[in-house]
Amino acid sequence: MEFKFSDKVSQLQASAIREILKYSSDPQVISFAAGSPAPEALPAQQLEEISKEILAQEPSVAFQYGVTEGYAPLRDEVKKLLASRGCFDPQYDEVIITSGAQQANELSAKVLCNEGETIVAESPSFIGSLNAFRSYHVDLCGVTLEEDGIDTDELEQILKTKNVKLVYLIPNFQNPTGNTMSWEKRVKTFELCEKYGAVILEDNPYGDLRFAGEDIKSIKTLDKQGSVIYSGTFSKILSPGIRVGYVCAHKDIIQKIIVCKQVADVHTTMWSQMLAYRFLKKYDLNEHLKGLRKVYEHKTSLMLGEIKKNFSSKIEYTKPQGGLFIWCTLPEGVTTEQMTDFCTRAVRDYKVAVVPGTAFTINSTDQTRSIRLNFSTPTDEQIIKGCEILGRLSKEMFGE
Amino acid sequence: MEFKFSDKVSQLQASAIREILKYSSDPQVISFAAGSPAPEALPAQQLEEISKEILAQEPSVAFQYGVTEGYAPLRDEVKKLLASRGCFDPQYDEVIITSGAQQANELSAKVLCNEGETIVAESPSFIGSLNAFRSYHVDLCGVTLEEDGIDTDELEQILKTKNVKLVYLIPNFQNPTGNTMSWEKRVKTFELCEKYGAVILEDNPYGDLRFAGEDIKSIKTLDKQGSVIYSGTFSKILSPGIRVGYVCAHKDIIQKIIVCKQVADVHTTMWSQMLAYRFLKKYDLNEHLKGLRKVYEHKTSLMLGEIKKNFSSKIEYTKPQGGLFIWCTLPEGVTTEQMTDFCTRAVRDYKVAVVPGTAFTINSTDQTRSIRLNFSTPTDEQIIKGCEILGRLSKEMFGE
Repeated sequence: MEFKFSDKVSQLQASAIREILKYSSDPQVISFAAGSPAPEALPAQQLEEISKEILAQEPSVAFQYGVTEGYAPLRDEVKKLLASRGCFDPQYDEVIITSGAQQANELSAKVLCNEGETIVAESPSFIGSLNAFRSYHVDLCGVTLEEDGIDTDELEQILKTKNVKLVYLIPNFQNPTGNTMSWEKRVKTFELCEKYGAVILEDNPYGDLRFAGEDIKSIKTLDKQGSVIYSGTFSKILSPGIRVGYVCAHKDIIQKIIVCKQVADVHTTMWSQMLAYRFLKKYDLNEHLKGLRKVYEHKTSLMLGEIKKNFSSKIEYTKPQGGLFIWCTLPEGVTTEQMTDFCTRAVRDYKVAVVPGTAFTINSTDQTRSIRLNFSTPTDEQIIKGCEILGRLSKEMFGE
Repeated sequence: MEFKFSDKVSQLQASAIREILKYSSDPQVISFAAGSPAPEALPAQQLEEISKEILAQEPSVAFQYGVTEGYAPLRDEVKKLLASRGCFDPQYDEVIITSGAQQANELSAKVLCNEGETIVAESPSFIGSLNAFRSYHVDLCGVTLEEDGIDTDELEQILKTKNVKLVYLIPNFQNPTGNTMSWEKRVKTFELCEKYGAVILEDNPYGDLRFAGEDIKSIKTLDKQGSVIYSGTFSKILSPGIRVGYVCAHKDIIQKIIVCKQVADVHTTMWSQMLAYRFLKKYDLNEHLKGLRKVYEHKTSLMLGEIKKNFSSKIEYTKPQGGLFIWCTLPEGVTTEQMTDFCTRAVRDYKVAVVPGTAFTINSTDQTRSIRLNFSTPTDEQIIKGCEILGRLSKEMFGE
């Protein structure tokens, strides 16, 4: 039978990363393609202990239905945490717990955008969010991402000419580039969005994973009326498998997100929410984060060193101060086809998986000669060996 | 700040049941308003044991990212279970694990329906699904629900005149009525949908909770080309708080649902999926279901007896052979306003919560003099006391 799918999903493809990850299921493949937290950074033992407590003490809370807004004690803890960072104002803000930040970003688009309305995103940007926006058939519009954040002149041009509902940004250690937006650009972008009446969706999954440089305040701290939607997650600091994220925004926006979450999945898994809550109560989050940052600092500097040692000298790459990713740009003149050829050969012939930049472009016709490398999932040995292999291939294809 | 929400959500309201449930948070209120499984029917101790095993043996599977399709061992078990009931054909069907059946139903609408296209539903029907459909701005169209299922002549009239993409049915112990669709009507409905090219969405959350009468085969068993989408859940037989459901449909439909689930929440909580899988492997599901049915049989017959004993004799009510709900229809001539007045007085003045039928109507202007009673959540004592109170009020308002 031939099925006629809705226009909004008929063009939607499964993430290109998934295709790469198929190769990665081969245990011989060294994967720099994932986006998972470092295995050694997961507090598995603490979570196991907490889980025992939850199921012994409050099984009926864990196993019965909960409210859509989220487990009240966790919501309160998240509000406290965000307030301490200037990201929650009880006068107009509210918080809802979501099934990961993915749901936070998807529902933000759903409540604000009609089909055909414009969402602006950094170009390149996180494929999961881009596909979520595409699934509502919006007009997705990219703004060039520079080392210190988007080109704000370009942003203003778009705000002037289009009906922009949402500006989607990952200001800290962006996925895929690892770039961080400067404070000046945060302020400028906020002012432009206020001026033209666009809502900012500030996605901050990696902000806690800064191991170098100085913290830069969230755009949400500039917000005095709830027009910035801030989304966060426990995926990178506790566990992605538990699927717990959150959104903080104006009460009116949260009210609509609640209604949409109710029809999406009723509520987030109770056990997961209780786990996150008890972790925050029982352990010192800052101490925990210090430990994580050490792991990530080590892995980043290891990979950066190996890239420097092995890769063709014509390849440029970002030097992130946090997060999970390094963005490598192949030499000038390399075409999109040659870049994907490099990625294909790497995984097919040499069993090293990386993600081609095309996965993160806004339009399918956008050209890119960049690739994304992840340093959190592989072991030290895999980082060394994988970089050696990629280095050899890069020199073969692009010269010393 | 004034926010401009998308057309699809601007009219969407939080479930009316939620308003009633606000009263229910008062511990003195006897609630017949919920839809939760009986607390004594949750296998909490077994699940606690299994959880310990999971976190001791496979913490990295539980805490890391999983694939969108679902935990492979659970998918295989679900396929086996459905195949044994004639609901899965490996030639064309596929299965995806979802975050509850709520997500299964929501994503089915998302992948198939453009805004303005028609979804047919039983009138009345489950508010969670109706609101999910509304959130995609479809044309929602009700068909009169009779004791043995929808009026198939009415269905044909609609199929003839409208572009119907989806026909949503809860054939077993329907929510809110408790009615079950006869085999004849299942066949007739299936034939009509095939003839007019509409896809059936068969939602079967309560099918395993039959405690009287004979099982009637699923509509999905008639399907020879994957044009019936079947959704199921572990919420009513294991635990709703873990949020695990599934969809079985043609591979092409599942492929699109996978893409939409990926942007919705990446994947369902790993621990929840592993819990469901290990329960199916470790315990005899049929033995477990026998135990549940005893609990539900007892509670249903208790409530039916108390209704008979106490309620105004002019009130009619369904006598379900399974599920969680009884549907009471107030005497002829009672208006929608008098019905809601009855519900409001019951909870406000006498602290017994029931859900007014208006929560389940297709259009906000539909008239109804029915109310939904849930017998699974209250204790025996609460059923007896609550029915006494409702009975007294019903006689006061509508006569002996």
